[in-house]
Amino acid sequence: MTLPAKATVVEVGPRDGFQMEKTFIPTDVKIDIANRLIESGLRRMEVTSFVSPKAVPQMKDAVLVAKGVERVAGLKLSALVPNPVGAQNAALAGVDEMVVFVSASESHNRSNVRRTIAESLDGFDEVARIAQEAGAALHGAVAVAFGCPFEGQVRKEQVSNIIERMTKLGIGSVTLGDTTGMATPPVVRDLCSHLRSVFPKLKISLHFHNTRGIGLVNVYQALQIGMDRFESSVAGLGGCPFAPGATGNIATEDLVYLLHELGIQTGVDLEKLIAAAGHVERVIGRTLPGQVMKAGARLKRYPLAGACTSPPDP
Amino acid sequence: MTLPAKATVVEVGPRDGFQMEKTFIPTDVKIDIANRLIESGLRRMEVTSFVSPKAVPQMKDAVLVAKGVERVAGLKLSALVPNPVGAQNAALAGVDEMVVFVSASESHNRSNVRRTIAESLDGFDEVARIAQEAGAALHGAVAVAFGCPFEGQVRKEQVSNIIERMTKLGIGSVTLGDTTGMATPPVVRDLCSHLRSVFPKLKISLHFHNTRGIGLVNVYQALQIGMDRFESSVAGLGGCPFAPGATGNIATEDLVYLLHELGIQTGVDLEKLIAAAGHVERVIGRTLPGQVMKAGARLKRYPLAGACTSPPDP
Repeated sequence: MTLPAKATVVEVGPRDGFQMEKTFIPTDVKIDIANRLIESGLRRMEVTSFVSPKAVPQMKDAVLVAKGVERVAGLKLSALVPNPVGAQNAALAGVDEMVVFVSASESHNRSNVRRTIAESLDGFDEVARIAQEAGAALHGAVAVAFGCPFEGQVRKEQVSNIIERMTKLGIGSVTLGDTTGMATPPVVRDLCSHLRSVFPKLKISLHFHNTRGIGLVNVYQALQIGMDRFESSVAGLGGCPFAPGATGNIATEDLVYLLHELGIQTGVDLEKLIAAAGHVERVIGRTLPGQVMKAGARLKRYPLAGACTSPPDP
Repeated sequence: MTLPAKATVVEVGPRDGFQMEKTFIPTDVKIDIANRLIESGLRRMEVTSFVSPKAVPQMKDAVLVAKGVERVAGLKLSALVPNPVGAQNAALAGVDEMVVFVSASESHNRSNVRRTIAESLDGFDEVARIAQEAGAALHGAVAVAFGCPFEGQVRKEQVSNIIERMTKLGIGSVTLGDTTGMATPPVVRDLCSHLRSVFPKLKISLHFHNTRGIGLVNVYQALQIGMDRFESSVAGLGGCPFAPGATGNIATEDLVYLLHELGIQTGVDLEKLIAAAGHVERVIGRTLPGQVMKAGARLKRYPLAGACTSPPDP
């Protein structure tokens, strides 16, 4: 089995995680968290979303956050832009990459942005123009790419047709979103192989959710067919509101732990990342789903203590 | 990639899960849960532990539980027996299999049962004699086989030396316990390949913990090298007390979900198993780590509802 020597980890917690929080996280706290994540070695981050402050008050400080993050060498900040107004703000804030998004199923796209898929795709033209003028890259995200909670199976042609349109706008990189955790190893293999054969030059990032407990299994499957770009969220912040109690994003520190144990380089210092995850959990004020942040790295030594696997001998 | 066509799932919740619960679970409730699990199609279950009722009051009804479970065709009940007294009680209760256990590291064995590994192994002789007289199979379990929380790395020879001794007692099947979640795909590959080459006839079950989020990744790795026996706990009940907040056992319904999605037969009805897991969560009275029990099977349809991946379009 040959795995990639390196993988790119895209941190989405500051956007995908924070946007789900009900209580407003102060701008300086957001910037501090982003800086801690960068300090751990992460160099790709979806840092905010340029949406209407009325619709998503949590993201009302998008410009301030994007401008406030420390710009170290090699850092690339991306942000979600749902429309031309958002793109103009993203340009003002100087993000490196704008992310346009659409769902692979009509039901989910309508539920998410009250548009047909065709309407969403048409809207990208103007965003693409603004991004080009601003010198920002354009990245496409396809939600529910591995299955739709309303429609069930998503055919791979639904995904490739959307990406076809995206590539015509000059988009050279996309994310496949596993929005409600419906990806499985066979589905991952099937969709990724299809897309690579149709779009051999396309850079594909995979955004798995752990909603059904197999987010990292899908990562392992993807690595085995040479995929090497993954999105994740520090401490497992964020997720999907459909299933009460179900987790959402895979945790960045769990992903990095797995990658490192497989001998795959990420450029991330796991101990610093675990510390950042612990900080995020304290800021958020509730237990978050990340596991490695609780147990520590593999060879962490525990003090000699009581029984674990089995009750003591009578 | 060729995966096994079938896999055996060994449910350990009634032993490994319940023993960690502080509040006594009434005997009839335990039996009812075991029966629900059997009703879902599970045919291998570690149903209790014949330990001192003083040391582990939760298991004081071991004989009643083992005798009370409905004996459907093909069912094999096993139980942990730490010593000859436990073995005699297990024989009285008519279990099909007695499980003797020892840790791969001296520190963990001492911490667990206050004995050296050699002392534990010597104690198996008498248990083996009692099991044979009772017509019960004897199964060996090796704790911390993939790493020790006190000593760190565990050499594969530490594990194979123990199994060598076990096979001399007529033991033909063993469990490798990932007691504190230190298994990783390379460690799994390495240890399993070693043991299969040394003991080609040995049946090996794998008992992974999800302490660092990759329990099911290890299952997927193991399947890829032909391993097909896994232990898990309904709803993810039980685990390891070292890391506060960390999960322990992989959840049986998450394991079965993965196996089925990989096209591997288990004989289990996932919907019934999910229902049983929900019942266990209600009985235990707190949120348990299983994911599929919260989100439902892959193609579960949700009613059309609000935004998920991204904030609504402004």
